Amino acid sequence: MVTLKDVAAACGVSPTTVSNILNGKSKASEETIRRVMEMVKKIDYRPNYMAKGLRTQRTRTVAIIAEDINQFTTPYVIGAVMNGLEQQGYRTILENLRMYERWRDTWYESESALSSMLHPALSACRAYNVDGVVYIAGHARKIYSIPEDFDIPVVMTYAYAVSDHIPSIVIDDEQGAYEVMKYLLEKGHRKIAIVTGRGDNIHTQLRIKGVIKAMYEYDCTYNPYLTTEGNWNRVDARNALSKLHIEDQGVTAVFTMNDEMAAGAYDVIEDAGLKVGEDISVIGFDNASIAQYFRPGLTTTTLPLLQIGAKAAELLGRILANEDGALMDNQTYYFPCTFVERASVKDIS
Amino acid sequence: MVTLKDVAAACGVSPTTVSNILNGKSKASEETIRRVMEMVKKIDYRPNYMAKGLRTQRTRTVAIIAEDINQFTTPYVIGAVMNGLEQQGYRTILENLRMYERWRDTWYESESALSSMLHPALSACRAYNVDGVVYIAGHARKIYSIPEDFDIPVVMTYAYAVSDHIPSIVIDDEQGAYEVMKYLLEKGHRKIAIVTGRGDNIHTQLRIKGVIKAMYEYDCTYNPYLTTEGNWNRVDARNALSKLHIEDQGVTAVFTMNDEMAAGAYDVIEDAGLKVGEDISVIGFDNASIAQYFRPGLTTTTLPLLQIGAKAAELLGRILANEDGALMDNQTYYFPCTFVERASVKDIS
Repeated sequence: MVTLKDVAAACGVSPTTVSNILNGKSKASEETIRRVMEMVKKIDYRPNYMAKGLRTQRTRTVAIIAEDINQFTTPYVIGAVMNGLEQQGYRTILENLRMYERWRDTWYESESALSSMLHPALSACRAYNVDGVVYIAGHARKIYSIPEDFDIPVVMTYAYAVSDHIPSIVIDDEQGAYEVMKYLLEKGHRKIAIVTGRGDNIHTQLRIKGVIKAMYEYDCTYNPYLTTEGNWNRVDARNALSKLHIEDQGVTAVFTMNDEMAAGAYDVIEDAGLKVGEDISVIGFDNASIAQYFRPGLTTTTLPLLQIGAKAAELLGRILANEDGALMDNQTYYFPCTFVERASVKDIS
Repeated sequence: MVTLKDVAAACGVSPTTVSNILNGKSKASEETIRRVMEMVKKIDYRPNYMAKGLRTQRTRTVAIIAEDINQFTTPYVIGAVMNGLEQQGYRTILENLRMYERWRDTWYESESALSSMLHPALSACRAYNVDGVVYIAGHARKIYSIPEDFDIPVVMTYAYAVSDHIPSIVIDDEQGAYEVMKYLLEKGHRKIAIVTGRGDNIHTQLRIKGVIKAMYEYDCTYNPYLTTEGNWNRVDARNALSKLHIEDQGVTAVFTMNDEMAAGAYDVIEDAGLKVGEDISVIGFDNASIAQYFRPGLTTTTLPLLQIGAKAAELLGRILANEDGALMDNQTYYFPCTFVERASVKDIS
């Protein structure tokens, strides 16, 4: 069998140089890279990950399982996970379950729908003999579908794993909403309409907690009749909010629990012949790519997606290295959102 | 060795049912799925893709190599490729080269930068014994980096493969720009400013061809002094366009070669105290997710990303099935863009 050393000898370079070139980490000249790659093909050297795995019990490959890469949050988490793992010398492969693309929002309550896509992916992880798995959920909820006896270490991101040995890394929804509301209250707003996501959703529930906490601190009574459900999208938010007749109620600000629903709030305010950021203020959540294109630019809060991805890579690396204390049973790590001020909120204090 | 039949017998279901459950295609009840999955674990059945590969010379697995999943076009193409391949019974794994994340826009001329990331990915394709590869470029250009003797079939998307046996599937930039310009000309616009992407870019060059073709048909002289380079981003587009002083030149419309630069055109028009879609019209390109959040909504054209992905899956499937005529040497498939009318262009005819 042709080995890495044979390639190195034939090219007159060190085995380390060949290994670095094959693993994309080489600082060698273009000429050297070309020569090595030609020799690899000429003598038909194939790095055999499976054989390596059998020899060392490690493939230094991690699988990333994403519920759907088309969720706007997911590519950022993936990039950060890959970056962190690559720096530790791990290769990654990505499994995309395409849950939202297949079933939109109808699968959240069905563990069997998720299992039907997840179990083949977990089987593939076993077949490829990966060392570890990073799971990237499309939205926060409790996830039961990873079998307790799945024998490869898993780190959960963006959702809460119900498991004795899977740590979860999530955004701090309560803190994010608390800071957004505190900003509105500091700017003198007291009559604030809230447009929530789906009511059965963990993001919604934790953000409501943050809202009420901030209001309590400012001696402001939470009025449930100024809260309405916008189902995370612009059209539903617009319809729901227009029914509150905020322009007749003395409402001075609207908090929408994502940026897309903020577009619906802009629609309602402009439909009433008023100006966003002057007559009525709007504040969003997510700092999605769309937020900076709003006119006026949307004040909002940034999800800590890169931090979540980096933490997942670090934590998995430590688990795989069997570091003491890397894995505290069933621990949940919260990362805070970061406030972004643009031009959609007026100071009326 | 434990086989699929053993699992089926132990559960009292057919081997087909077990196979479907393991491959995520089952219509079985949640109870049956649970029972089968438990038995799979209990008797430690592991589908061995590598062994299957050795036996049949096929793994029915395709690798998708993406230059960067954070390019806004890429997740759509990936989703469509996966969907098309899944319907033909192929599993997919995804390799993300993260080229833009690593080096932003500085690597386009460097084949060695691309090779340093691509070759490990191609080695992985060999090691995993995949049947085929779909390559998803982040922007259109000629790609030389796939070795001529790479022995797994490749289909190129969103760029032009320079190779004797790799077909390419791309957007029709010239047609897209031609239709956008024709729309402006039909609406009576004659003095039209153009904000291009980088000048050395194939997208830019083909779109300019479309612009000039449409103008020629309408007896409208192309004025290079009303064309400026916006480097695909809002800030550069704003700076470049403001130097043309379009408000003093009688310009009635601006075509920006992507939607992000259209935001820069909106900035310039509003800075001059004018209104988009009334005083000066704007038309974009891409129909990126941001376009519908502009005020007024941006008229633009949609990239055929889903069509490109579907075609790549279909073509690769036919190549792997050895269908006659599936692979015409070195063929390039063009898909047209689809015009989207919103509210940023005024009829002045």
